[in-house]
Amino acid sequence: MTSPVLPSHGQARPLALAQITLTGGFWGDRQAVNATATLAHCEAWMERLGWLANFDRVADGTTGPDRPGWSFSDSEVYKLLEALAWESARTGDPEPEAAIKRLTARVARAQDPDGYLNTCFGHGDQPPRYSDLEMGHELYNTGHLLQAAVARLRTHGEDDLVRIARRAADHVCRAFGPGGIDGICGHPEIEVGLAEFGRALGDERYVEQARLFLDRRGHGRLRDIPLGRAYFQDDLPIRQADVWRGHAVRALYLAAAAVDVAVERGDDELLRAVERQWERSVARRTYLTGGMGSRHQDEGFGEDWELPPDRAYCETCAGVASIMVSWRLHLATGDVRYTDLIERTLYNVIATSPSADGRAFFYANPLHQRVAGRPADPDEVSPRAEGGARAAWFDVSCCPTNVARTLASLHGYLATSDDDGLRIHQYAPCEIRAELPDGRPASVDVETAYPESGTVRVRIAADADAPWTLTLRVPAWAEGATLTEGGRTRPAEPGLVSVRRAFRAGDEIVLDLPMEPRFTWPDPRIDAVRGCVAVERGPEVLCLESRDLPDPGALDSLVVDPRAVPRAVPGGAVVRGRVPDLAGSAWPYRADPAGAATGEWFDVRLAPYHGWARRGPSSMRLFLPVSADPPPTHVNAEGISAP
Amino acid sequence: MTSPVLPSHGQARPLALAQITLTGGFWGDRQAVNATATLAHCEAWMERLGWLANFDRVADGTTGPDRPGWSFSDSEVYKLLEALAWESARTGDPEPEAAIKRLTARVARAQDPDGYLNTCFGHGDQPPRYSDLEMGHELYNTGHLLQAAVARLRTHGEDDLVRIARRAADHVCRAFGPGGIDGICGHPEIEVGLAEFGRALGDERYVEQARLFLDRRGHGRLRDIPLGRAYFQDDLPIRQADVWRGHAVRALYLAAAAVDVAVERGDDELLRAVERQWERSVARRTYLTGGMGSRHQDEGFGEDWELPPDRAYCETCAGVASIMVSWRLHLATGDVRYTDLIERTLYNVIATSPSADGRAFFYANPLHQRVAGRPADPDEVSPRAEGGARAAWFDVSCCPTNVARTLASLHGYLATSDDDGLRIHQYAPCEIRAELPDGRPASVDVETAYPESGTVRVRIAADADAPWTLTLRVPAWAEGATLTEGGRTRPAEPGLVSVRRAFRAGDEIVLDLPMEPRFTWPDPRIDAVRGCVAVERGPEVLCLESRDLPDPGALDSLVVDPRAVPRAVPGGAVVRGRVPDLAGSAWPYRADPAGAATGEWFDVRLAPYHGWARRGPSSMRLFLPVSADPPPTHVNAEGISAP
Repeated sequence: MTSPVLPSHGQARPLALAQITLTGGFWGDRQAVNATATLAHCEAWMERLGWLANFDRVADGTTGPDRPGWSFSDSEVYKLLEALAWESARTGDPEPEAAIKRLTARVARAQDPDGYLNTCFGHGDQPPRYSDLEMGHELYNTGHLLQAAVARLRTHGEDDLVRIARRAADHVCRAFGPGGIDGICGHPEIEVGLAEFGRALGDERYVEQARLFLDRRGHGRLRDIPLGRAYFQDDLPIRQADVWRGHAVRALYLAAAAVDVAVERGDDELLRAVERQWERSVARRTYLTGGMGSRHQDEGFGEDWELPPDRAYCETCAGVASIMVSWRLHLATGDVRYTDLIERTLYNVIATSPSADGRAFFYANPLHQRVAGRPADPDEVSPRAEGGARAAWFDVSCCPTNVARTLASLHGYLATSDDDGLRIHQYAPCEIRAELPDGRPASVDVETAYPESGTVRVRIAADADAPWTLTLRVPAWAEGATLTEGGRTRPAEPGLVSVRRAFRAGDEIVLDLPMEPRFTWPDPRIDAVRGCVAVERGPEVLCLESRDLPDPGALDSLVVDPRAVPRAVPGGAVVRGRVPDLAGSAWPYRADPAGAATGEWFDVRLAPYHGWARRGPSSMRLFLPVSADPPPTHVNAEGISAP
Repeated sequence: MTSPVLPSHGQARPLALAQITLTGGFWGDRQAVNATATLAHCEAWMERLGWLANFDRVADGTTGPDRPGWSFSDSEVYKLLEALAWESARTGDPEPEAAIKRLTARVARAQDPDGYLNTCFGHGDQPPRYSDLEMGHELYNTGHLLQAAVARLRTHGEDDLVRIARRAADHVCRAFGPGGIDGICGHPEIEVGLAEFGRALGDERYVEQARLFLDRRGHGRLRDIPLGRAYFQDDLPIRQADVWRGHAVRALYLAAAAVDVAVERGDDELLRAVERQWERSVARRTYLTGGMGSRHQDEGFGEDWELPPDRAYCETCAGVASIMVSWRLHLATGDVRYTDLIERTLYNVIATSPSADGRAFFYANPLHQRVAGRPADPDEVSPRAEGGARAAWFDVSCCPTNVARTLASLHGYLATSDDDGLRIHQYAPCEIRAELPDGRPASVDVETAYPESGTVRVRIAADADAPWTLTLRVPAWAEGATLTEGGRTRPAEPGLVSVRRAFRAGDEIVLDLPMEPRFTWPDPRIDAVRGCVAVERGPEVLCLESRDLPDPGALDSLVVDPRAVPRAVPGGAVVRGRVPDLAGSAWPYRADPAGAATGEWFDVRLAPYHGWARRGPSSMRLFLPVSADPPPTHVNAEGISAP
């Protein structure tokens, strides 16, 4: 069976990729752009920069001191291969298949006889193998090779890429197994690669090696660095940690692997540890967008409540990795809090990164851009990961291929099945053609303009002789949703809503989600956005771009009226705001609070955050300061929403 | 004449160091600890780590790939030499003089015949001279050598250290003068070193080379780096820039040099450029403490209004450098805004860094510490520059020697003279024995327990036959100050207050500064502290340490009552606060603002920020969220205070 993640058991089963087809809409369009533009774009850049030629040079014995790319550039080739594998299976088009063959052939030539495969270490004058476990990324690269091979195995079966990966994995098990090097890689990834590779091949050895790497970590095997060992999660064993810390992508890839190993081994202690880390990290270290990573310095999580909007890093790759973790936790537990967070992250991190043409990307996704970015030259590599302008390629270019592999397999994250039916988690126009274990057909067509509209129409596509259960996720934000079926409309509380029936083709179940724009208030402990409010509409977080203000410079001082509820307008919402006259002063600290009760009220237009900077450079903010005069009503009720 | 900075002309003239003696008190005590502990501490660490032996190895031809220290470790030796030079002159004690001789002898042996002096480049297998202008710090090191030589020249006269420096400066002028390398150093410092060296020797060539370096900068001569060329101020010519940006210490050392060159050349355009940069940087990029540097990533300034308290970097060295700039601007213009900022920076950055015993230091000085630091091992080098715990030494250990040279020469920053009298800028118990150009004695004794008390008693120490003017700075925060003389008390507005008379020995002028603790509100555009208030008392910013709360964990949720004015208590102030019951939630963004109107009011004790973490690890915050229920009075009046 084909699916991006395939545990041997769990509370929810992924659908096979072949059982679900996106038919346009928000995500179908993006998947198409990924297929027609992004994949070739990535390959072209890696050719141009010599990251592909690095493999040829190893094969030809011509490595030299001028090797282009960072030590992890091989992984970009593997992530592209993974994306191509999903894409080839999705459409059956010849081009992705041809690309897989031509890339695989070049990779194959660079593999050493003992299975070692790396273009930065171990050949010619290069540093010896495994001489820099902290920053050398050798096992990290191999982990991505294994994930690519998993995609290929699940969509195509054994081929050269799989054989390369098997030799590489065997080499890793020999080199780092019991009695081998007692080490770990500074960037987790080999663990999730090994665990999934073991599942895909039914080979327990690989899962065991993943477990070994997991349990070796957290004891200070890596040398200390100025950022501290928390940077690579070597500060604390994963079973003991309560929260994610350090480099966000590292922390999340590791957590994904831990869920895989926990599920395969029935290791509830380990599963519970990751759930606990997810809980506190989501409650205290996650942005409203679902973005993770509060610091530029180490691309890392901050402390609890440290969530600056302007210096938010929210790396696109951390969004991908967060979805990897949440999806695995959902499959293990069936808990909707995980699919809730996936929706949030998809619409507000993943969708934000690529340009409309699929040829430029955000690396960091801040929630507040103080100074408009400069448009990036589409013909140049951006040396920087700052937000503000999507760039064609980066010096450290992990995000484009990560977006590519996620979009190419995105239909795999929309729905799951269980013994009695189908659960739909993400709403997009699609066709689902599934069959339950006992042969009952569970096939539906979903029609929706979500998230522009909140109406999701699920039409049964095949008669069933026996009843089965159709379950729909009602997002945590969707208070007031209704479900209509058989002419009856009933409230649908956030969580899951089910209909069980011997469905007939043509039956329609309609979920109506409330799409009025709404104010969302941060916890008072998030110091950086105290006195601010955000506006959300459905799964989308909205933002204000300076170009939508009469005076773009007013973005720094604008306040909104918290008493005036946001109004929906096409493509976004309108709130009431004004721009107090904040006179310049020589020193920005005063004996009295500054006056705020000036300025004429006017309508301020907000639009989805994922669309920001698409009309050109702009400054932007997502959390809007509220006018303090007259004061907002402060409510004691909890009014808690969930991710 | 001896003084840390000695322009050839300007609106204010520094006193000679020999004309002023600190006699205890806040700064006298710190100067004594610096003398008895810090200087030997710095030398011992540099010996232990081999930073001193680096000079021996160059001399002995035994340099190797294991050279300890960063490329800028030589500069620490030079900064210590500068501190020792000021200290030797201050006390005449034999130990600093002996230390100068022993360090100078080792440095001397490492100098190449052509004057080049560096332990990291140009010898044995080391990279060639000037092969890494961006990050090699060669000219930076030389700049600090020149500053040490200036201290020696002004306090002692020509000696071996001065001769070494002269050969090094001549080498730089040959290597980088017209027709030489058309380059600049990635870390400004050679400029201020050359300018002052030129002044001290009366040799215009050095000032001209400083000017050449200044005007070469800002045209992209240094290669681009991921942090951008703004990191080393090579993005924009200094004459065109409107604000400081990039690495804070780099920006400020450059600005100090620019003032020196502008004054010596009568280059008003350049002087005005630095004043303009100071104005906007102080109005929009400076912390309440006077600290500068909002980002850890690049130890740099942020954008306008980007002043996060928790991730404030506020490097101790940036505080030193800010004082260097402001003092030069004050000497050039006589404007008290500069001496106001110096006072703020002295009490809240410089005084914060060293431990009471002078053997441990803060590198970064954040305004909010979310998690208590771990006590540093006094026998270990800290690999990190994070705040939270003072460390004995750092891997990058620029701050201890910078504090040392500042404290050893601190009496030089207290007062100035002009043709008609004496101006006292900083209040500390001291004896001033000056003479005006025409021979009138301008000698006073200052008695004060400032900043514990606001009473500053200036007693005339010598009879004058003719009138002269005693001028006292009334800090910008000191609304309501009074001056008492000859039995009459009159209001003294912030700025300068003068008394002109034919003073007689024993005459007393008493300045009374209001020392009631006061609320200070941030500009609403400083997003990171919106809805917060700080408390200041005199020149000291106060803070709350978690150890002073009944429940240390309450630091995250405590709010203070903005209607209850702070009350003075010994050693600090008390405000009214309470701890709302903020229930944990799974997701920290809600449909309604969280309730704040719960919790019993109690007295919250604040103490000077410079004293924080002296009783052991603690979390801490300086800006305190205000209770929103009932609302604070919002005032439209400007109520602007100045630095």
